[in-house]
Amino acid sequence: MPIVDSQTGEVRVDYSVEELEAKAQEMRAWNMISLTAAGSGHTGGTLSIMDITAALYLKHIRHDPQNPQWPDRDRVFWSSGHKAPALYVALAATGYIDDRPLTFHDEPVPGLEDISGLEQTVLLRRLGSGFEGHPNRFKLPGLEFSSGSLGQGLGVAIGSAMDAKLRGRDYNVYCLMGDGEQDEGSVWEGVMCAAHYELDNLVGIIDVNRLQIDGPTEEIMKVQPLRQKYEAFGWEVIEIDGHDMTEILEALQQADAVTGCPALILAHTIKGKCVDFAEDVVGYHGVPPKDGRYGEESLERALECIGACEQFPPERVDDLLAIAETYQAYVDQRVAESMPKFSQDYWWNHGDTMQAEMDATRNGFGHAIAELSADEKVVAHGADITDSIRMDYFYKPDGKNEDPERKKRFFSMGIAEANMALVASGLAKEGRIAFIGSYGVFATGRNWDQLRTTVGYNDFNVKIADAHGGISVGPDGATHQALEEISLITCLPNFKMIVPCDALETARATKAIAAIQGPAVVRYAREATSVVTSEETPFEFGLANVIRYRGEQERFIDAFETTLACDYQSEGEVIAIIACGPMVPEAMRAAWILKEDYGIETRVVNAHTVKPLDAEAIASAARDAEVVITVEEHQVGGFGNLVAGVICKAGLGGDVKLDMVGVEDRYGESGQSWELMKVFGLTAEHIADKARKLLEL
Amino acid sequence: MPIVDSQTGEVRVDYSVEELEAKAQEMRAWNMISLTAAGSGHTGGTLSIMDITAALYLKHIRHDPQNPQWPDRDRVFWSSGHKAPALYVALAATGYIDDRPLTFHDEPVPGLEDISGLEQTVLLRRLGSGFEGHPNRFKLPGLEFSSGSLGQGLGVAIGSAMDAKLRGRDYNVYCLMGDGEQDEGSVWEGVMCAAHYELDNLVGIIDVNRLQIDGPTEEIMKVQPLRQKYEAFGWEVIEIDGHDMTEILEALQQADAVTGCPALILAHTIKGKCVDFAEDVVGYHGVPPKDGRYGEESLERALECIGACEQFPPERVDDLLAIAETYQAYVDQRVAESMPKFSQDYWWNHGDTMQAEMDATRNGFGHAIAELSADEKVVAHGADITDSIRMDYFYKPDGKNEDPERKKRFFSMGIAEANMALVASGLAKEGRIAFIGSYGVFATGRNWDQLRTTVGYNDFNVKIADAHGGISVGPDGATHQALEEISLITCLPNFKMIVPCDALETARATKAIAAIQGPAVVRYAREATSVVTSEETPFEFGLANVIRYRGEQERFIDAFETTLACDYQSEGEVIAIIACGPMVPEAMRAAWILKEDYGIETRVVNAHTVKPLDAEAIASAARDAEVVITVEEHQVGGFGNLVAGVICKAGLGGDVKLDMVGVEDRYGESGQSWELMKVFGLTAEHIADKARKLLEL
Repeated sequence: MPIVDSQTGEVRVDYSVEELEAKAQEMRAWNMISLTAAGSGHTGGTLSIMDITAALYLKHIRHDPQNPQWPDRDRVFWSSGHKAPALYVALAATGYIDDRPLTFHDEPVPGLEDISGLEQTVLLRRLGSGFEGHPNRFKLPGLEFSSGSLGQGLGVAIGSAMDAKLRGRDYNVYCLMGDGEQDEGSVWEGVMCAAHYELDNLVGIIDVNRLQIDGPTEEIMKVQPLRQKYEAFGWEVIEIDGHDMTEILEALQQADAVTGCPALILAHTIKGKCVDFAEDVVGYHGVPPKDGRYGEESLERALECIGACEQFPPERVDDLLAIAETYQAYVDQRVAESMPKFSQDYWWNHGDTMQAEMDATRNGFGHAIAELSADEKVVAHGADITDSIRMDYFYKPDGKNEDPERKKRFFSMGIAEANMALVASGLAKEGRIAFIGSYGVFATGRNWDQLRTTVGYNDFNVKIADAHGGISVGPDGATHQALEEISLITCLPNFKMIVPCDALETARATKAIAAIQGPAVVRYAREATSVVTSEETPFEFGLANVIRYRGEQERFIDAFETTLACDYQSEGEVIAIIACGPMVPEAMRAAWILKEDYGIETRVVNAHTVKPLDAEAIASAARDAEVVITVEEHQVGGFGNLVAGVICKAGLGGDVKLDMVGVEDRYGESGQSWELMKVFGLTAEHIADKARKLLEL
Repeated sequence: MPIVDSQTGEVRVDYSVEELEAKAQEMRAWNMISLTAAGSGHTGGTLSIMDITAALYLKHIRHDPQNPQWPDRDRVFWSSGHKAPALYVALAATGYIDDRPLTFHDEPVPGLEDISGLEQTVLLRRLGSGFEGHPNRFKLPGLEFSSGSLGQGLGVAIGSAMDAKLRGRDYNVYCLMGDGEQDEGSVWEGVMCAAHYELDNLVGIIDVNRLQIDGPTEEIMKVQPLRQKYEAFGWEVIEIDGHDMTEILEALQQADAVTGCPALILAHTIKGKCVDFAEDVVGYHGVPPKDGRYGEESLERALECIGACEQFPPERVDDLLAIAETYQAYVDQRVAESMPKFSQDYWWNHGDTMQAEMDATRNGFGHAIAELSADEKVVAHGADITDSIRMDYFYKPDGKNEDPERKKRFFSMGIAEANMALVASGLAKEGRIAFIGSYGVFATGRNWDQLRTTVGYNDFNVKIADAHGGISVGPDGATHQALEEISLITCLPNFKMIVPCDALETARATKAIAAIQGPAVVRYAREATSVVTSEETPFEFGLANVIRYRGEQERFIDAFETTLACDYQSEGEVIAIIACGPMVPEAMRAAWILKEDYGIETRVVNAHTVKPLDAEAIASAARDAEVVITVEEHQVGGFGNLVAGVICKAGLGGDVKLDMVGVEDRYGESGQSWELMKVFGLTAEHIADKARKLLEL
């Protein structure tokens, strides 16, 4: 069924196979341009799925881009949400986006009033553009659902297919999945369920590109033979070359015709298809087109490989990339306007003094795990984002070369966080100190019941690397920005949790959780943040530090004095800022601002250990100060309410003025890391602004 | 390998096949006696697994009951933890328990100083006995891990098998699973992983008794053909009659000999095997031996079926059951002694006045879902505990007869909570109001990432029946007592949550969450608790009620006056108790105690809506009272810290003393519902005791 007018049934467009092939190449070109403009995103998978995408949206499915909510439309569920750029160019190419005015915060962007839908796709991953790193159904038309956490699309597609049966509607439901995604147990729950309900209006399509982030699926987690697996689960399976347009179209028709059971199309593809430097290359998963051989010309080379140079000559490409720049300049200006203002610009490394060294907390984890892995008792597990969270340092202690003995103690688990927690428990039970890790959403949320009942209730020595904590994850967007782990973990008996403030403290925290008995979590972030501790800074598990601003210095770190809270004598500070994680450097910067602009002394409490919390340090701060502000890169209150609980139990609840800085009960979004920190109100400026309001300055 | 002395290698016992068959029957008898003594527990599955249990523990595995931690022992992982009674009799029958002195809180129980290990098994599910409803590895020797949440054992067994490979140890690892359990996706993650790592020291055993709680697996969720599924996943599969001792022993030897991949024994069994009234009967899952035909003589009949009457004549059975009674009497006395004392006994329905009607909040859910299901827009899903959580009222609106139209809108999902949340999302996406439900641990924890990213981020109209909330779940123990849902849910954007106080309010809360847009949760409990509201009691979503004690009456409910908090004028109460859920009746009873014993007026705030919380009601209460006590049947602070956050942010400018009543950062345990409430400090007496301490009375 081609694209139709849902009112009249008239065909709007009907492409030939040759035209479709050409369209798929054009879509590849747009895809590469948008990824280049974004500077991040998923090259490999968008290129492997592009022919199937073109076949579906431009030819096979019944839909009407002028009526996205048409009840009789076929539904396509993108379970692999990271392939969003391919989806976006398909939506643009079929006309979903053209009528959507480009705005930022509901206002038109000057100079970009008239850009087409396809041109808009170059705003991929930009704040407010709607082209989120992973699809958000509220931000673009034509999306069936918001996705990005693997293994969740099939179940939703099943629900949609069930509803069609229940109402007697004849639409078809398609679910696009990856082969690495088949590691996830929730997929197999869905596979079983779809067969149980004999959903013959459901077609699964697996983009079998044979590579996942950490390596070939064959090495990371053998998912094959998928044909036999799906057949044993009661599906009818069709295998094709996922880059042969005729085969794709025939397979879709064949799959639609299956009766009595769901159908699966196993589409054999090449990751990075058509772009020579990306084709079949591990490591071309979550990166935009850039290649050592072609440097700045990587996009040019990619377009050449695709055969799109005529359609996209350099000047056209420049114009397109300029759209993104124009947009970003406008956004920058609007974001800057929204920031609280002070007598001068106190931003990181803005002036000549107060220079801060920046390093990502995840690097601190990497350095510590490299040290810890020397101990044979320590084992570690990977969940297919091993490099990204720096777990690879476990077996590459120098950051480069694999140590064969340590590699034997590293277990690749695939994208299967529940099983990872369980397997680690088994190893811990036998006397190991077992590290697991992933992005926080998956490492503490996808496996929460396993953490509670197997890890926690058994008090096993499982240690969790809770990576990508916070909004500062950036362009990947909401699905990958963990904002709830403090709530998830602190409610669990036997668990301990540290949220360290910088790279060095993360290394120390990692070693601390390895050394204590029982389950423990270290939460850390992706983006480089200010290093505010040194080897001399006190660090004791379970004890908070007090940090005091002592006057401007050449180096930011030297402007502060840090002591264990239990050793600190009050100096009559007016404000206490109680913080954890990389919000501690922001709190310190707020102390600097408040002193310089208002002459106010601030006690910053670095409560790195959030379970058990240093109640005495918090109670003292609340007792001594007039105003308390809690600060967290987390859903507000996850940490703040713990602090409030301590203050109330100390009998101080009525006496202090307290406010909380954090994410205000909303999901994250795509944008640059620091841009998001500003937009979500998580900077020193916001803290200082809250303080001056509470003090009525 | 028979039971050996781990020091000398000498064989301790070596049974013949005939002896094993007799032992298995004797173990069945002990099992039925312990279940009868407990008055709850899993008859069907313990009888289907018993021959395999006997074969493993009495004959096949290498172990030494005198040295439970022997590093070279074979490991058996009971993934189906609910079959614990079979495990306990096996441990007792092989001598693990004999040397363990029976104590309660580390003190010997008078009159029971010398009972044998097998005799101790009659203390199944009793508080402090160690024979938890589901195994706890800290409470008995011979347990590899604590289990009870299905689908978690295989991964732990894999970790143990990996460790053996890593250290070059030659022990074997066995994992016992059920066939219904194969619904869980985490099982398939493990199945894939075990084959990936070629764990030929791992043997899976599935007790294929073909029945799960809600019905035959064929109807609830087709798991078959399990042979083809496991083979496609790379396992070697052996099928046997799970009640033929020779076949069992041969299969175990054959499985041990498999090389290059894990082995699976598919043991075809009969649920309830050997006990005629339980054999192959749906509904004989989680109930002790009792049958209409045999009434009080059900145990006698069971022993007759088993052929154990000679070994267990009536007087011997009576003696054994008396052990449980002696133990319980001692426990009752100790628990009573531990309770705070007042001028009289204020316990529920203890005196002639203040009579309370008791009803389980889950019944309120049932009544509401029966009403709601009249609306075609409403659909519902079951996760194999449909009756227990009263979700069956969806299609049995009168509690008895199925309505065929409504049944079509009910979807059985099997034991697959992640997929349930996703499928419901798909139906919600198509315009339905989709109810899902299970015990809270599974309904909000097992699927947390699905709730966050698919349900919440998409703002889908999915409604969650969070059943079995709290410690009062009783004898099932920690794994089934949900104590963390308020923390898990309130941190999620777009979610709403109500924790109603009684059966009637649960019905109203259920209707309220159906009526509001977006994801919402109602938390309710298993045990009957006091009905303290009527149709006249105000109930507004998002608004708290104030409840005031007005003097003793014949009926408890008439002794109190309830108004919306926003309509209430302070009467200068000294204490505010802020509560949610069935702790509200406890708070009311505390108000009664405090008034009668100390003349103190108490404002009880029923904050049924925990998200969004009625901040004004809480702030007013804190402003007016000297002392605030938060009360929750939950890990302490999950609710209490939310209240503390409100109080601190309100900036009251005066003294508030606050304390919290809740579960003190520990897992639950087995016991009778009210007994646990007392032991965990969750009664009116504990609240009143905290109040008098805070007021220094």
